[in-house]
Amino acid sequence: MGNPTAAMIVIGDEILSGRTRDANMHHLACELTKVGIDLMEVRVVSDDQAAIVGAVRDLSDRYDSVFTSGGIGPTHDDITADCVAEAFGRSIDVRDDARDLLVAHWEARGVEVNEARLRMARIPAGARLIDNPVSIAPGFTIENVHVMAGVPAVFEAMVATVLPTLTGGTPLMSQNLRIERGEGEIAGPLAALAERYPDLSIGSYPYQRDGVYGANIVIRGTDGARVDAAMSELAGMFP
Amino acid sequence: MGNPTAAMIVIGDEILSGRTRDANMHHLACELTKVGIDLMEVRVVSDDQAAIVGAVRDLSDRYDSVFTSGGIGPTHDDITADCVAEAFGRSIDVRDDARDLLVAHWEARGVEVNEARLRMARIPAGARLIDNPVSIAPGFTIENVHVMAGVPAVFEAMVATVLPTLTGGTPLMSQNLRIERGEGEIAGPLAALAERYPDLSIGSYPYQRDGVYGANIVIRGTDGARVDAAMSELAGMFP
Repeated sequence: MGNPTAAMIVIGDEILSGRTRDANMHHLACELTKVGIDLMEVRVVSDDQAAIVGAVRDLSDRYDSVFTSGGIGPTHDDITADCVAEAFGRSIDVRDDARDLLVAHWEARGVEVNEARLRMARIPAGARLIDNPVSIAPGFTIENVHVMAGVPAVFEAMVATVLPTLTGGTPLMSQNLRIERGEGEIAGPLAALAERYPDLSIGSYPYQRDGVYGANIVIRGTDGARVDAAMSELAGMFP
Repeated sequence: MGNPTAAMIVIGDEILSGRTRDANMHHLACELTKVGIDLMEVRVVSDDQAAIVGAVRDLSDRYDSVFTSGGIGPTHDDITADCVAEAFGRSIDVRDDARDLLVAHWEARGVEVNEARLRMARIPAGARLIDNPVSIAPGFTIENVHVMAGVPAVFEAMVATVLPTLTGGTPLMSQNLRIERGEGEIAGPLAALAERYPDLSIGSYPYQRDGVYGANIVIRGTDGARVDAAMSELAGMFP
């Protein structure tokens, strides 16, 4: 369909151990769909240098944009900024603009400026800062990689800042039909419909509620008239 | 730590478009942690042959076990079984044992046996079936890859069947301390503690509630006495 493509890297042992349930993937997926950027792949990796560097290199090569979530706080397990710098062969240090933002914020609140807190001002050379209206410590963009916080409120604010700067594609039109029959009954006619409309994506999502089997059929495409036509055919098949 | 390792592949356009919020990753992460298997990486990929085959080959090479979720229903977009067969160079067809299970189930309920439904009996040569007590259509294990349904109730039942057949490691002991101070204040002493206990994993998970900043510090390790000792030190630092 020619839309811009994206990938996401969720960073954090706490997700992989089950301690925390990730919320950022679902948020980003919804936001990208709205602006016509196709999320192609998500990887969840641990707080491990080789894993993060490898994922950043691999995905930034293959997709138009990459979004990372997590690992940019002040503690010893926050290694994302250093790993992204390494992936692109950039140097990294506490940068004046980021430090000034943070120090002004802390001094206004009587918060001590210490070495650990200043880790949050470590920014790779040549990166562009991403505003953090929630807790000030910035994210950053380097090449096609947007490095953002894991705390959902901060992640969401950063996504809202970054998305308008990207070139979107044609947003998908989507229509939904709930059919109260088992997927096995729907599948044959649905496959034939999908063959007649190769330009559309036709998905079937089964459910079971109160002992009744059914499926939500979702037809997606960039051409609204084609989506309408396929949906009319589908509704005719399962009145 | 020498525990067995695992990866997960979540398959489905509906997750990447944001239409559905995945629940299976969090469930599997919790279950693996309980039995001492380390979940190292999760990939979410679309209903795309090259993406699925590539992820299965890559992850089954690198980790002891791989779990997949999604794409084994009766509709045209359910291509996981065929992709896993291809990844291992196996043939795939409707297999007698799987068909017999399904046909018996359907006949008892007056459900028509049709070609689409029989797709769910397509099993790669040499695979071992995984019981599905919820809706009968089986998953399967081939080499070190466990192929399971995306519907959470079915996925969870299949995980419960598979896990006892795997060799677990030493389950992690974990202790948690909530500290009502900003992470920036905790970070320095915490890094020093992590250096004194290199055999433990010490994570800091910040939160903000009613305007109060704090962090949950989680100390994990296989030796309960060491976890106790580190937790006592931590509690002493932040009384």
